[in-house]
Formats: sequence, structure tokens, C-alpha cells
Amino acid sequence: MRVDLALIHYPVCNRNREIIGSAVTNLDLHDIARAGRTFGIDRYYLVTPFADQQQLVRDILDHWQTGYGAGYNKDRKEALSIVRLCDDVAGLYKEVTAKWQQRPTVLATSAANSDRAVEYGDIRARIFAGEPFLILFGTGWGMAPELMAEVDGLLPPLKGGGDYNHLSVRSAAAIVLDRLLGDH
Amino acid sequence: MRVDLALIHYPVCNRNREIIGSAVTNLDLHDIARAGRTFGIDRYYLVTPFADQQQLVRDILDHWQTGYGAGYNKDRKEALSIVRLCDDVAGLYKEVTAKWQQRPTVLATSAANSDRAVEYGDIRARIFAGEPFLILFGTGWGMAPELMAEVDGLLPPLKGGGDYNHLSVRSAAAIVLDRLLGDH
Repeated sequence: MRVDLALIHYPVCNRNREIIGSAVTNLDLHDIARAGRTFGIDRYYLVTPFADQQQLVRDILDHWQTGYGAGYNKDRKEALSIVRLCDDVAGLYKEVTAKWQQRPTVLATSAANSDRAVEYGDIRARIFAGEPFLILFGTGWGMAPELMAEVDGLLPPLKGGGDYNHLSVRSAAAIVLDRLLGDH
Repeated sequence: MRVDLALIHYPVCNRNREIIGSAVTNLDLHDIARAGRTFGIDRYYLVTPFADQQQLVRDILDHWQTGYGAGYNKDRKEALSIVRLCDDVAGLYKEVTAKWQQRPTVLATSAANSDRAVEYGDIRARIFAGEPFLILFGTGWGMAPELMAEVDGLLPPLKGGGDYNHLSVRSAAAIVLDRLLGDH
């Protein structure tokens, strides 16, 4: 499918709504790559401008793709093959636009209701019709307001019956991919 | 809802299909509790017979419920309030049967197709009609065959278009809860 997912580590907010760069985590890398591979996305981009964080990602990928892990767990090697690094959001947009030869529709997830909300069923139909999409997920306390302001639409909050919706980004990404691409 | 989820650490298989007890992980505890609370389940049971593993869980819960974490993150405190410990599967069945005053239908997830498969839509309808359910998730390389043999039905594998379905248990639990209880 012409769907990419990006996990944004900068610019995001901390709990005081200040703009920061968050740390890459091993588990976000593995869990979201496995979900991305399961649901057939094209690439899973990690966006961070920090050289030490990028090196950490490369070290983890090397272990599972050419090091000891490659022989130990071939399924993990396959999942991590979809991971790519980007320095910043501008570079991310440039790369996916070149790949699809058109700018994809850029969607973000939001924990709040919005007048820019799209519907999962509509986006799913457009994906299966061949349209390219890029879906952004934030880390920390969420993506910076200026980044949220420039996306093309917002995927509605993931909820059950109540008002509590404090999912981990790993859980949210898995559910969004299942809603948009799952075999159900 | 009259739905409980249990994460089984014994009896499970290792990669050589031997029966082992797996280690409790901090992240399975947090991620699945947050998803469970979001989708309105009643309890999230951790099943392990090992005293040191049970103590680890109690220490984590204490930190977030009465220690420093309780003031730092009230959302996490709320999520972890649904966590309970059980020594073994027999104790788990006894506890949920006493709670609902009837034995719930026990379902497990499976990565393989099965003639005991149920349908997500049917189970969802039965949950919303008030029937009690207990959903088991395995750790390691999956639940022991004798445990799988005694459940009432199997939830079908979670897939996208392809054959790859190596999700983490955290991702699988999030998706199953969304399919059965999500506001979609």
C-alpha cells in the first residue's frame, strides 16, 4: 500500500507545553515496525535531528539486520527492513513526495475532537483506491502546534465507551493501522 | 463491560516449544493497562506463579498508585488500578467466575487459522448484550497447548493483506480491544 508512517521525535511538546526533542526508544522502533510490516505499509520513518539518536537507531538496525539478531530472529529482520531515518519533517515530506511522485495526504492523530477530523472508513477506502498517505505520530506530550497546523487532516481520537484515552503511541499506531489496513 | 483480559506468563512455550514461565515486563504492564482502561475492560490480570515476579509487579504498582508516580501522572495511576495478580490459570478462572456469578466465555488469540475460530463482530455483539468474557494473551512463543485446548474459542489472527503477522502482545491486545470494544 502507498502508506507511510512517521514517528516524530522533534518538534514535540513536553508536559509543560515547551518544544523539545524526545529520545528514540528501542521498543517504539520494534513494536511499530512489526505492526507496520503486518499491515503492509511501505516505510516507517523515525524523525530525529540528533546524531547520537540516529546512531542508536542504526546500531539497533545493524544488530537485527546483519548482526547476531539477523540469524536469531528472521521475522524481526523483516519487520525492521521498513525503518528509515529522517533529520526533520521537511526532509520527510521531500522523500515521500519523491517516492510517490506526488505529495501524499498528510494525517496526524489527535487525542482531541477537531473540525479538521477525517473518518477512518473514508481514508481506508482512499488507501485501497491507491492514494498515497503519510500518517504522523507524536512522542512526548504530542507534536508541536505548528506541525499539527500544517497537516491535511486529523484522525479522530481512539476511544472506548468512556473519556479515558491515554494510549501509548505503540498501541495507538497498531490500532490506527488495523482500522485503515486490517483484514476485517 | 463484563470483559477481563489476562496476560499469561505460565504455562507458555519457549522457541523450542518447551513449557516455561516467562518474565513479567514493565512495558506489558503499562501499555496493556492503558489500552484496557481506554476500552473499558473490568480487570487486567497478570498470571505468574513466581513470587519474585509478583513482587516486581507490586513494586511497580505501588510506585504509580501510592508513591512518587501517583502525583506525577494521575492518568497512569488510573490505568494501573485495573491490574490484578493471579498465581495460576485455575485461580484466574475461579476469580472471574465468582465475580460474574457465572463462568465467562474464555477466548484466546491465535496466530493460526482454526476450526474453533469465533468472529470479532459476533463477540462484540455478545459483549454489548452483557455476556461476560475472559480473553487470554500469551507471552514468550505462545500459550501451552493444554491451555489452548481448554478455552471456549479462538479469536482469528490479526492480519493486513499479507502473511506476516508477528505483532507484539502489546499491539495485539490493543487491536483486539479496539475491535471488540472500540467506539468505531
